[in-house]
Amino acid sequence: MQDLDIAVELRTALRRLAKAVVVITAMHDGRRYAMAATAVSELSMDPPSILICVNQSASLHSPLDAGAPFCVNILDAAQRTIAERCSGAIKGEDRFGEGEWELASAGPPMLKGAQAAIVCRNETSVVFGTHRIFIGQVVDIRVGDLADPLVYVDGRYTRCA
Amino acid sequence: MQDLDIAVELRTALRRLAKAVVVITAMHDGRRYAMAATAVSELSMDPPSILICVNQSASLHSPLDAGAPFCVNILDAAQRTIAERCSGAIKGEDRFGEGEWELASAGPPMLKGAQAAIVCRNETSVVFGTHRIFIGQVVDIRVGDLADPLVYVDGRYTRCA
Repeated sequence: MQDLDIAVELRTALRRLAKAVVVITAMHDGRRYAMAATAVSELSMDPPSILICVNQSASLHSPLDAGAPFCVNILDAAQRTIAERCSGAIKGEDRFGEGEWELASAGPPMLKGAQAAIVCRNETSVVFGTHRIFIGQVVDIRVGDLADPLVYVDGRYTRCA
Repeated sequence: MQDLDIAVELRTALRRLAKAVVVITAMHDGRRYAMAATAVSELSMDPPSILICVNQSASLHSPLDAGAPFCVNILDAAQRTIAERCSGAIKGEDRFGEGEWELASAGPPMLKGAQAAIVCRNETSVVFGTHRIFIGQVVDIRVGDLADPLVYVDGRYTRCA
């Protein structure tokens, strides 16, 4: 298969890779950044860490590349409109126009009512292709009560059965 | 928060990070390896790539560290028992005792009836803590018809609503 065909097939295959929807946030030079994403993975418990993959063309990339701490806010099934607001034509500070946001002591915005908010020190990063993988060592966590995350699968938002 | 508390809280938070369940496979020195996992992420479309996080103590780690290509088989909601077989006390070749497996031309076993099977050349890797992140450049893909992946959330297997 050629790379172009592979990319087309890979998009189709990834529609099957159901994922919780998160909003990754950062605070840098007095500005807040937010981006909806699904390219997130648990990494290790020793040290407690997760990773995120961010396109180098995303507005969030620059603050992260500068070493800003970040927060992975796992959205609740009821927070679909926040996911949409943080992934579409709305940019910059306006992405925080919905939901209650407060700053974690480490800096990045945490979303109240999220399934969980995982605050990370920006530990190291690796570039691959268009993207950069940021590895975060977890420094603070807030977890909600009921597990009912927003899920993205087959091009649509849903929740778990 | 101390690291130990953080690890406990992180486990709870990650229960909210709903994920499709995959079985990662490899073929190395004439032996087949399989491991159920959720620590998988899309990475880039240019080049088409994904990443997986594997504990350095896992039996799958050694062949991957030796550069074996791997396949990420996204399980169908009906393939829960395959996930269980590839993550429990059953080891080695016995993990292939259920389901129809065939070898991709690149080498690793592909599961028939999976939601998708994504075959990767083992491109590079990065160690962090107990785990190693393997970056795979996608070389072959098979995609099933209907999108209905097996999902793991809140410590249980389920599917999308």
